[in-house]
Amino acid sequence: MHHIRDMTIAFLGLGLISGSLAGALRAAKWGGELIAWGPRAKSLERGQALGLIDRFNLELEPVIAGADIVVIGAPPIATAELLPEVLGMAQAHGEPIVTDIASIKASVVEAAIPQYKKFVPGHPIAGSEHSGVGAAVADLFEGREVILTPLLQTDPSAVGVVQAMWESAGARVTLLSVTDHDSALAASSHVPHMLAYVLTTMLSQHPLMPMKHGGGALRDMTRIAASDPGMWRDIALANRDAILTAMDAVAVQHAHLRNLIAEADAPAMEALFAYCREVRREHDAILNPLPRLEEDAS
Amino acid sequence: MHHIRDMTIAFLGLGLISGSLAGALRAAKWGGELIAWGPRAKSLERGQALGLIDRFNLELEPVIAGADIVVIGAPPIATAELLPEVLGMAQAHGEPIVTDIASIKASVVEAAIPQYKKFVPGHPIAGSEHSGVGAAVADLFEGREVILTPLLQTDPSAVGVVQAMWESAGARVTLLSVTDHDSALAASSHVPHMLAYVLTTMLSQHPLMPMKHGGGALRDMTRIAASDPGMWRDIALANRDAILTAMDAVAVQHAHLRNLIAEADAPAMEALFAYCREVRREHDAILNPLPRLEEDAS
Repeated sequence: MHHIRDMTIAFLGLGLISGSLAGALRAAKWGGELIAWGPRAKSLERGQALGLIDRFNLELEPVIAGADIVVIGAPPIATAELLPEVLGMAQAHGEPIVTDIASIKASVVEAAIPQYKKFVPGHPIAGSEHSGVGAAVADLFEGREVILTPLLQTDPSAVGVVQAMWESAGARVTLLSVTDHDSALAASSHVPHMLAYVLTTMLSQHPLMPMKHGGGALRDMTRIAASDPGMWRDIALANRDAILTAMDAVAVQHAHLRNLIAEADAPAMEALFAYCREVRREHDAILNPLPRLEEDAS
Repeated sequence: MHHIRDMTIAFLGLGLISGSLAGALRAAKWGGELIAWGPRAKSLERGQALGLIDRFNLELEPVIAGADIVVIGAPPIATAELLPEVLGMAQAHGEPIVTDIASIKASVVEAAIPQYKKFVPGHPIAGSEHSGVGAAVADLFEGREVILTPLLQTDPSAVGVVQAMWESAGARVTLLSVTDHDSALAASSHVPHMLAYVLTTMLSQHPLMPMKHGGGALRDMTRIAASDPGMWRDIALANRDAILTAMDAVAVQHAHLRNLIAEADAPAMEALFAYCREVRREHDAILNPLPRLEEDAS
């Protein structure tokens, strides 16, 4: 086997995340070839023109056969659909390490059949409301977390290789169980998206059209409402139970705050708002790994 | 009376908004003096050291007597408390134009007694989770909306002067009724802040502490949870009814989306998400008047 940094990486599907990963590895002078497969030539040609990949092939099998690491760069449901075929080919052709980027892990792990000990489920906590390889940026993962959710049978050395790949791209890697990942992400990512949708629909149905009076607060609170609708439909389907649980917890807090306001309970409101400020400030370095972002978003 | 741009402007209280307005007027080479009053010397000295104001005085009456335009730079409840005294002094000393920046207008207008036809209620839609004159930035109002809510008896020429002042600072000025302003702002600003608080409390009480896994989405959806707790307590008190109405509309949309997810209604979810993307994109230029902001916040 090659030295890790000389491994050939195959991207199955080239979009915002996989394209940004390729760009980050290029910027970090990754030694191995970066190759890609996809169902259509268009985004692959774009990725090659942008210098993100060395070459591509519209046939899946030779791409997997030629790779040391296979990165499935697809949303959760497409990842689950692709996995059995990919893992079967991997088993048959030199057993490359396989990883994915899907934001939900339970549905992906369930689909990872036949069992394959070199499959390392992964999820980079990075993205944008933009999509497609044209939106790829090489510093997307700088200081960001990548969560890996290996199973008991997962080969630890495969986990180490995937970790090294992401660290080369600037990310920090942590490990979680599949269940904890899906529950935590429902709260930290999926439900915030649902709240952006809820807020946007409320505003769009208000007789005064208040969105046109929005400032920086509304800019930030609705930015992710412009995210890819198909991807978020799939996430809502694939992580349904955890999302519903977190939405119910939101509804409880919403009713609690509504109650404080209705009762004009000034001290309780101020205490709650001050507590939130503390909580937010404690997480500032995690949420703003590149300090320029906080400054510009203010 | 001087030419508008040679008018002396008095800031009562020097904080983020009034300090940024002073800075913007300086940058636009406003000709008149910029002076300030405040209950304590500290922020006034800071503002003078930063070059935002020419001089200050801890006595209110001479500051008002020396001004052509008086800008009350305080949150809603403090503004309402200060107004009767300020308007009384204005009436007694040369009748300067008086305006304010409070984010709620009904409670301010109710407090504007004795009636004074040169009082122009105003609200710049700009701010930050930071506070204090030290956070002032001269481009805070660039492309942002300032809403003025004149009453029937308000002197139109006073409205024109306040409009010219804000336009010098880079803002665009629109007029609304007091009631429409408070209702629209409850939806576009106050309730988004309440949602940031709701989301932050939900996350802080989650057993997995999911905020530590947050990415750019959570950064934006919780940024304003770090806002000034006392100011938001006052806003929640002063605009209570409109905020409760908008929170109830949020609860309806939240329950609707929860239902779609529970029923796994994929086409309805995708349609709703796609609709939100359209709505958000239609408001992009308003919410992102400085294009660099969108880019950096992605």
